[in-house]
Amino acid sequence: MKLGQPLKQLSEFRDMVESALAELSGRRPGRIPQRLWDAMTYSLLAGGKRVRPVLCLLAGKACGAFLPDIIPMAVACEMVHTASLIHDDLPSMDNDNLRRGKPTNHVVFGEPLALLAGDALFLWAFDFARRGLEERGVFSPQSILDAVGELLEASGPFGICGGQVLDSDPQSFSPTDDHPWNVARAKTAVLIRSSVVSGAILGGASGRKRSAFFDFGYHLGTAFQIVDDIIDVTGDESRIGKTPGKDSNQGKMTFVAVFGIEKAKQLAAIETERALEALARIDGDTSELKLFPEILRERSC
Amino acid sequence: MKLGQPLKQLSEFRDMVESALAELSGRRPGRIPQRLWDAMTYSLLAGGKRVRPVLCLLAGKACGAFLPDIIPMAVACEMVHTASLIHDDLPSMDNDNLRRGKPTNHVVFGEPLALLAGDALFLWAFDFARRGLEERGVFSPQSILDAVGELLEASGPFGICGGQVLDSDPQSFSPTDDHPWNVARAKTAVLIRSSVVSGAILGGASGRKRSAFFDFGYHLGTAFQIVDDIIDVTGDESRIGKTPGKDSNQGKMTFVAVFGIEKAKQLAAIETERALEALARIDGDTSELKLFPEILRERSC
Repeated sequence: MKLGQPLKQLSEFRDMVESALAELSGRRPGRIPQRLWDAMTYSLLAGGKRVRPVLCLLAGKACGAFLPDIIPMAVACEMVHTASLIHDDLPSMDNDNLRRGKPTNHVVFGEPLALLAGDALFLWAFDFARRGLEERGVFSPQSILDAVGELLEASGPFGICGGQVLDSDPQSFSPTDDHPWNVARAKTAVLIRSSVVSGAILGGASGRKRSAFFDFGYHLGTAFQIVDDIIDVTGDESRIGKTPGKDSNQGKMTFVAVFGIEKAKQLAAIETERALEALARIDGDTSELKLFPEILRERSC
Repeated sequence: MKLGQPLKQLSEFRDMVESALAELSGRRPGRIPQRLWDAMTYSLLAGGKRVRPVLCLLAGKACGAFLPDIIPMAVACEMVHTASLIHDDLPSMDNDNLRRGKPTNHVVFGEPLALLAGDALFLWAFDFARRGLEERGVFSPQSILDAVGELLEASGPFGICGGQVLDSDPQSFSPTDDHPWNVARAKTAVLIRSSVVSGAILGGASGRKRSAFFDFGYHLGTAFQIVDDIIDVTGDESRIGKTPGKDSNQGKMTFVAVFGIEKAKQLAAIETERALEALARIDGDTSELKLFPEILRERSC
């Protein structure tokens, strides 16, 4: 995947995530069956921009955290995201054969194992974060509960699972302009928000500061979904690493389908602006977090 | 489902679980899409003996806990179990149309929604337990982390997900007598064990006492799986509420397939005896927990 300048500036943090993922993939816990492990790590190491774990690290950094302490949380954010992609791609869902430029999990491992690899990554994410954070010995049990709890809420029926239903189940489509917003919130924004907020919590943020990270993550995540909807229509396969035009072909009620491309671009710009406004309320070094709006601008043009 | 005498003696506790499930099913949180909620609660309310949540309550009771405080944990145990059943029954897995005497989730709601209902129940279980236990205001954050952590470990690649792979993926079959034991541990025993141990933790058990609950749950859970393998061969549909003979027809390496029925019955008796021995090490009222071995004897005869 071709990376623009702002993404290059984040390479240090992406490298931290890649190292952590590579390290864990090389050490299979004996009690995890080999084939399940192969399927889990295949998708975990299949590339991607690592947006969520990098956001988690950067939010922690902006609060003065020591980054290696937060790595288990960042990895958990990527595990949850990867799990949701494995399930999204299944034949009974989007039936996609290509993801991040590679054959999807069920194409390589078969449908039963892909289903279980998704389940396993969803669930292991929280076990991994809990254990990893406890082992660091620097977080209070309440901080761990709060941080892991943010990710939990973002993953279940309030978050990704609910968003997938709103996005893909025709009987759950609502014929209102609210629909794409509801999809974006549940399917994308809450996970991006929780990645940011969990990092901030582990960095010690509370009260107004935590709330500013919350708003930043929410608006950034919403902008991400709008831009994703735009790229689905305007992008090509080699650039976006997945089959383009799937959403529009499936009759999904995306931002583009509901508002048209030009209006969707305006909405993305507004959400991005709101994310920057929230960031401005944060007292701390948010210079790297500010790069994300730039990444979005690059993606959507 | 016809219940024997020992199960009737536990009706008070099963009723507590049913009431909690019915109450939560009647109050859909607004952010959960209606159709997803319908699919989640359909399976959650589809009956069953509620073995895991009742074990959780009884372990807590044996440690002197106030039962309503532990209900969120007990419900979470049932959510995880139900989620695993929904995914097990999917066409790409066991392709079963009947569960607990009723049409399976995907038969009623379609495969995509059944997949997402399983995901949602898996993930909500932990969010529900965490919030519910925190709201009670009587547990330390560390107790909540430990109790929820037990269930997390039992659900992911070390537990149910790994067990499903060992049980259903022919490439993961091992041609040794160990195989059914490994399947039983991961697929069944660790979840039953974690249901017991999480209740005990919330009741304040630590050290040797917690370890005795751990052993009790592990051996009881192993015995459950052996008996399940026996019933798969000897049971009839109206009695067991699911399609009989599925496992043997699929060439699974069950206890019966590997050891034969008579030897499997002996192994179940040995595991049951070990469970009772562990129970005898516990200082507290374990009279109701002692009924579970009797339930197993009834099931296997």
